[in-house]
Amino acid sequence: MEILLALVNVPLNDISLHYTKTHRMKQFVAAILLLLSVSSFAQTDSITLARFFETALAKDKAYSDLHDLCKLCGPRLSGSSGANKAVSLVEKILKAEGLDSVWLQEVKVPHWVRGEHESASIIYTSTSKNVKPNLAIVKVCALGGSIPTPAAGLTAQVIEVKGLEQLTKINPADIKGKIVFFNEAFDQSLRVTFQAYSKAGPQRWAGAAEAAKYGAIGVVVRSMAQHIDDWPHTGSMGYKDSVNKIPAIAISTQGAELLSESLKKDKNIRFTFHTGCYTLPDTQSYNVIGEIKGTERPNEIIIVGGHLDSWDLAEGAQDDGAGIVQSIEVLRLFKTLGIRPRHTIRFVAYMNEENGTRGGRKYAEWARTSGEKHIAAIESDAGGFTPRGFSLEGSDTIRALVKKKWKTLMDKFEIGSLDDIGSGADVGYLQGNAKLLAELHPDSQRYFDFHHNARDTWENVNDRELEMGAAAMASFVYLIDKYGLDGE
Amino acid sequence: MEILLALVNVPLNDISLHYTKTHRMKQFVAAILLLLSVSSFAQTDSITLARFFETALAKDKAYSDLHDLCKLCGPRLSGSSGANKAVSLVEKILKAEGLDSVWLQEVKVPHWVRGEHESASIIYTSTSKNVKPNLAIVKVCALGGSIPTPAAGLTAQVIEVKGLEQLTKINPADIKGKIVFFNEAFDQSLRVTFQAYSKAGPQRWAGAAEAAKYGAIGVVVRSMAQHIDDWPHTGSMGYKDSVNKIPAIAISTQGAELLSESLKKDKNIRFTFHTGCYTLPDTQSYNVIGEIKGTERPNEIIIVGGHLDSWDLAEGAQDDGAGIVQSIEVLRLFKTLGIRPRHTIRFVAYMNEENGTRGGRKYAEWARTSGEKHIAAIESDAGGFTPRGFSLEGSDTIRALVKKKWKTLMDKFEIGSLDDIGSGADVGYLQGNAKLLAELHPDSQRYFDFHHNARDTWENVNDRELEMGAAAMASFVYLIDKYGLDGE
Repeated sequence: MEILLALVNVPLNDISLHYTKTHRMKQFVAAILLLLSVSSFAQTDSITLARFFETALAKDKAYSDLHDLCKLCGPRLSGSSGANKAVSLVEKILKAEGLDSVWLQEVKVPHWVRGEHESASIIYTSTSKNVKPNLAIVKVCALGGSIPTPAAGLTAQVIEVKGLEQLTKINPADIKGKIVFFNEAFDQSLRVTFQAYSKAGPQRWAGAAEAAKYGAIGVVVRSMAQHIDDWPHTGSMGYKDSVNKIPAIAISTQGAELLSESLKKDKNIRFTFHTGCYTLPDTQSYNVIGEIKGTERPNEIIIVGGHLDSWDLAEGAQDDGAGIVQSIEVLRLFKTLGIRPRHTIRFVAYMNEENGTRGGRKYAEWARTSGEKHIAAIESDAGGFTPRGFSLEGSDTIRALVKKKWKTLMDKFEIGSLDDIGSGADVGYLQGNAKLLAELHPDSQRYFDFHHNARDTWENVNDRELEMGAAAMASFVYLIDKYGLDGE
Repeated sequence: MEILLALVNVPLNDISLHYTKTHRMKQFVAAILLLLSVSSFAQTDSITLARFFETALAKDKAYSDLHDLCKLCGPRLSGSSGANKAVSLVEKILKAEGLDSVWLQEVKVPHWVRGEHESASIIYTSTSKNVKPNLAIVKVCALGGSIPTPAAGLTAQVIEVKGLEQLTKINPADIKGKIVFFNEAFDQSLRVTFQAYSKAGPQRWAGAAEAAKYGAIGVVVRSMAQHIDDWPHTGSMGYKDSVNKIPAIAISTQGAELLSESLKKDKNIRFTFHTGCYTLPDTQSYNVIGEIKGTERPNEIIIVGGHLDSWDLAEGAQDDGAGIVQSIEVLRLFKTLGIRPRHTIRFVAYMNEENGTRGGRKYAEWARTSGEKHIAAIESDAGGFTPRGFSLEGSDTIRALVKKKWKTLMDKFEIGSLDDIGSGADVGYLQGNAKLLAELHPDSQRYFDFHHNARDTWENVNDRELEMGAAAMASFVYLIDKYGLDGE
C-alpha cells in the first residue's frame, strides 16, 4: 500500500483506503524479488520461463489459431471434410511459421457419420399421467460407432442399471427385448474429474455389447458429465463380434434424471429413439508434422502434440483444438524468443484419437524405424485450462529425476504438479521408444462441461488459460532440451 | 486400460480401443497407491484432507449457501437492505449449524447509493462523421464514492491518458475544463491477474483527485479487466480534501476502445455522461461471527473469513460471497467429519471491505483487547476458483516453517503454492496480533471477468471449484490446529 501511496502522492481518506488489496501489491513485489533472488544459473532459466508466459499471454496467438481451427474448419471427426480442412490449415500455419520442415504422414482412418434426425422421447402410460399416452422429449445423440435404429425408430420398455456391474445382477428375462438405461452418475466426490470419467466410462463404451448379451435391443447411456444440463455427450463405443449389435445413444444428464424419476413412478413407461448414423469405408487422412531442427543433436527428438480430429457435435475447441494450437505455440515461442534448441523439437498433430487412435499408432510405428532417437514426447489433450503441471510416464528413476531437477523452478510458475503417472492416448504408443512420455495437466474441473458435446466451442475456451498451457509446455520442453534426461 | 478390460470382459475391436485414456486410469490407480504408500503418520493427515475434499464436493453445501446469499439477499453494498438481509441470513445459517456460539459485532459503515439513470455517450462532430452531430451510447457506471453529475449531466471534450503518470506530462491547459479519460489497459503479459490490477488500479482510485488538480471537470476510467466486453466495472475511488471533487465513472473496455479510436480520428469529439449517485449518513451494520470452541486451547483462535458486503451491480458471488460460504463450510466440515479442534475455530464475515474495511478494522481493534490469542487468520477474497495454495504473511521464519512442514502434503491436493507474500484486506488488520495471516490463493485467470460488474452472479461460480477452495481452507486450518505454528 505504501508503494501506491508514493506513486499517487495523495493522502488517503477513509473511504479510499482499500481500492486495492495490500497483499496483492506485496505479491507483485515479492514476485519480482523472487525472480531476482535466485542463483544466476537458475535465474536465467527462470527469466526464460517468465518470457514464455509473458510472450504467450501478450501475443495471444494460440487463441487466434484456435479461432481459425474452430471457425474455418468446423467439427473435425475423422474422415469428415472438417478434418480435411484442418489438415490443410495446420500445414499452412506451420509453413507460415518458417519451420525447418513440415510434412504430412498418411493415416487411413475410420469414417463414421452421425446422419440426421436424432430424437428420443419418454412415452408415459395412461396410468402414469392419468391421461392418454403422453410424450416427454429428451436430448440424445448417437454414440460414435453405433449402428442406427431401424428407420421407424426403436421403442421398448426400459430397465435402468447403475453401470455395468449392476447389469450382471439383473434377471436376464427382465432385460430381453428392452432398452437398457445405463445411469451411473459421475462420482462428484472425486477431486480429479478424469477419475470420475474412468469410473463411469465403461458403461458408455461397453454398455451395448454387454446389454446385447442378455437380449436388450438398444442402450441409452447417461452423459459423462458432473452437471445436470441438457447437452448430450457423445464418445466412442464398441461392439463385440460374437454379440448382436444394438443401437447406442447418450442422453443428457437432465434427460437421464427425468427418465430415472419417471421409471420410479411407473416402470411400464416406454422409451423411443431414432438415429440415422452409418459407417463409410476407411478413408485417407494425415498426421501433420513440423519441426525445428536441433543445433547439436538433430537426430534426437522432443515431441509436442495433440490430436487434430474432434467429435462431430461441435468445434472440438477444448478437445483437442487446444492441444493443437498450444503445441504449435511451443515451436513459435522458441522462434519468437530466438532460442535455438539443441535437440529437434517436433510438432505432431495426430489424426483420429477419438475413434481409433490410428494417427498415434502410425506415428509410433514410423518412429520405430525412422533411425531417430525420441527423447521425450509431451501431449496436450486434457483441455485448455490453467496448467497445473504434467503427468509423467517412464521409469521410476526418470520421473524422480524430473521432479528433483525442475519441480522447484516449475513451482514458481505453478506448473510443478508432477505426481500423476500417465501420458496421453497418442504419445502412449511411443512407450518403450521415448524415455519420457508426458501430458500437460490442466485444471480439470470444467472439462466435462464441454467434453464431446455441442458446447465445445472456441467461445468456451479462456484465452489466458490456453496460452499459459502453451507456456507451460514450452517451459518443460526448454528444460528437457537444455539439460537432457540423463543422470542424477 | 488392462484394468478396464478385466472389468468389462469383452475383447476390443479397433474402434473401441480408446473410449477412455490409458493414462487416466493409471492416474486413478496412482492416486490410490499414493494415499496408501505414505507413512502412517502422514497417512492419517492425507486421509483427513482427502475427506475434506470428498465431503465438500459430494455435499455441495457451500454452493447452495451461495445460492441463498446471492438470490435471497441480492447485492450487498454496505448500508443497503441487501447487506442487512445478508447479516440475518448468515447468522441464521451459523445457528443452524449448531456452532458453540454465534454473535453480531456492531460496525458503523458508510452508505453510498448509486441512484438511477446512469448513461453516457460519445458525441461526434459534423467533421468526424460527415453528418450532423451523432451519438454512440457507451456502457458506464459511477465509481463507488463518486459525487453525481449535475442533473443535466456533464458534457465536455475529452483528453486521453494512459494512467496517472502520463497525466503529469500533459500541458495543464489541455486538461482544464475537460473530461480526463484514463485508459491504461490491463497488462496482459502478467501471469497473475492481480498484478495487472495493481498496475492499472491507481487510475481508478486516484484519477479524479489527480485530474481535478489541473481543472478537469470529470473522469472516465477504463474498467479493470483483461477482456474486451461491454460490462463496466465499478470499485472504490477517493477524493483529496484539498482538491475540487469531480464525478468519476468507469467505462466498459469495449466503450474505452471505441472512445480511444474515436479520439484518434477526431480530438474534438465530446463525451457526455449522467450519474445520480449520493452518500447518506453512516449507518449501523455488523460483522457476523460464529465459532467452534477448542477442546484444549479455547482461548487461542484460528480465524477463517471473507467479506459479507459486495458492490451493488450484482450479487457479489465471486467477490466475496464465495469467501463467506467457503469459510462457513470450513466449520461445517469439521462438524460433519466429527473433528473437534484443539484451538477455537472462528468464522468472521466482515462488513464493508469494498468501501471502507470498517469491519476488518473493528474486529482487529476488538481482538487486541479481547484477552484471546490469535494464532492464525485465513481470508478468502480472491474468488471461488480452483485453489492453488495460500499467500502467507508473517515472519520469514513462520512462512518457511509452514512450507517445510506442509508443502509436500498440500502438493498432493494441488494446494501447495505457498510462495506469495500477503494476506487479505480484512485479516491484514490483525498484523502484529496473529502470528500467521494468510489468504486462499485460487486460480486468478477469470476473476476480472466478473469483479465488480453485473456478471458477478451465482451462475458464474463453478460449484466444484468453490467447494475445493473450502476444502483447501479446512485442510490448512486442520494442520495449523493439529500441529500449531511453533518449532524450528
